[in-house]
Amino acid sequence: MTNINPVSISPIGFIRSPYKEKFAVPRQPGLAPDAVSVIEFYPPYNDELAFEGIDGFSHIHVIFLFDKIDYQKFKPKVRPPRLGGNVSVGVFSTRSPFRPNRLGLSILKIHRVIREKGKVSLEVLGADLVDNTPIIDIKPYIPFVDSVPDAVGGFASAPPPMYEVVFENDTESIIKTLGEQRYKAVCQTLSQDPRPAYKDDTDEKVYVVKIYSFTINFKVKDSRIHVFSVNIDGETSC
Amino acid sequence: MTNINPVSISPIGFIRSPYKEKFAVPRQPGLAPDAVSVIEFYPPYNDELAFEGIDGFSHIHVIFLFDKIDYQKFKPKVRPPRLGGNVSVGVFSTRSPFRPNRLGLSILKIHRVIREKGKVSLEVLGADLVDNTPIIDIKPYIPFVDSVPDAVGGFASAPPPMYEVVFENDTESIIKTLGEQRYKAVCQTLSQDPRPAYKDDTDEKVYVVKIYSFTINFKVKDSRIHVFSVNIDGETSC
Repeated sequence: MTNINPVSISPIGFIRSPYKEKFAVPRQPGLAPDAVSVIEFYPPYNDELAFEGIDGFSHIHVIFLFDKIDYQKFKPKVRPPRLGGNVSVGVFSTRSPFRPNRLGLSILKIHRVIREKGKVSLEVLGADLVDNTPIIDIKPYIPFVDSVPDAVGGFASAPPPMYEVVFENDTESIIKTLGEQRYKAVCQTLSQDPRPAYKDDTDEKVYVVKIYSFTINFKVKDSRIHVFSVNIDGETSC
Repeated sequence: MTNINPVSISPIGFIRSPYKEKFAVPRQPGLAPDAVSVIEFYPPYNDELAFEGIDGFSHIHVIFLFDKIDYQKFKPKVRPPRLGGNVSVGVFSTRSPFRPNRLGLSILKIHRVIREKGKVSLEVLGADLVDNTPIIDIKPYIPFVDSVPDAVGGFASAPPPMYEVVFENDTESIIKTLGEQRYKAVCQTLSQDPRPAYKDDTDEKVYVVKIYSFTINFKVKDSRIHVFSVNIDGETSC
């Protein structure tokens, strides 16, 4: 009676985001609110008719595929970065990508509905998705059912701490060449501290993140993110 | 570069809910808050270890499959019940089940974590899922990222109106035989007015809903739901 058979799902589109690799991605949506991403839809889903009424909503749920995670045997426990990466909890108590069916879920703010020749793409703010991530569905966010301000959030009850970002040498002016909003998005992304969760605040290792067209080198000193060099890789896609 | 290939997903479990058919199901989660449902997980996903830490959360996102909807050619527009069933809008501006990939999403309150012999099932409140619906994933609800009280909710900005429920003959005492909470859940479900959205408030048709083990006959008069007979079909599963 109950359907236990596998079903096939297909991406309806993909996202173009500032995050060119897993390493730099904020660990929740909304933490880098100035980061603009674009959801592109494949035909026939990009039909303007399919988005009629979307302008009345400020936010959407985005269901996506963690396509960088290979299939593997189910492991009931994971070590979320939020707990420092060395405490394990049940996978269903986390948003870990290492989960059955590899589906992710983020609530994103609609920045702009782009209509061109009857086709729609969506500019969204604060995405925590790697560039090119496949999108499985979008649904309008309905505050009277979806917003539960008094919900209890377990080990993720408060936002993670923010780090101060210090630009050394000429790194700030290089990053500002892409404009004030992208500069802000870079600052917000770095201030999350993208290092692996098990890092030690005394480590002096150099880390590399790819955001927009930049390869950014930083290290952490006195609990601040020090950016000491930036390379430009080419054109930015978003 | 971008993955456009179909992927296979498999249910991790199913829900046992009071709603034995599509007709009676509330049109959003949380509208019948006393309705208790149970999410049962298939092995290996029912492992107690996979739920370690879940007790710290009050709510979960549930991703499920609209398995009663047959595959069909993509239609960009639908007629949501919320708009009376005769105004069409874009499918991505709605939560309609008639959508690519047929995934549904509900935020449900955890009522009780049931642990038996190392296996877990979850009692949840307010589900808007048909009995036996396949569950694809659950994720903890994290209020600081998921709750957006000032989001704008388009045509669904306010809860739907509630109808008064009038029990005629001995129908109230029959429904109360299943206990006060299930009686409340039945009242809440009926007060949503389960009739098709395009109904007219002057229609005198008799409608039939199946909730728990009851087959309930009602009609609408003077904008009130009149329950005039109840049959008991057998044992309730939830």
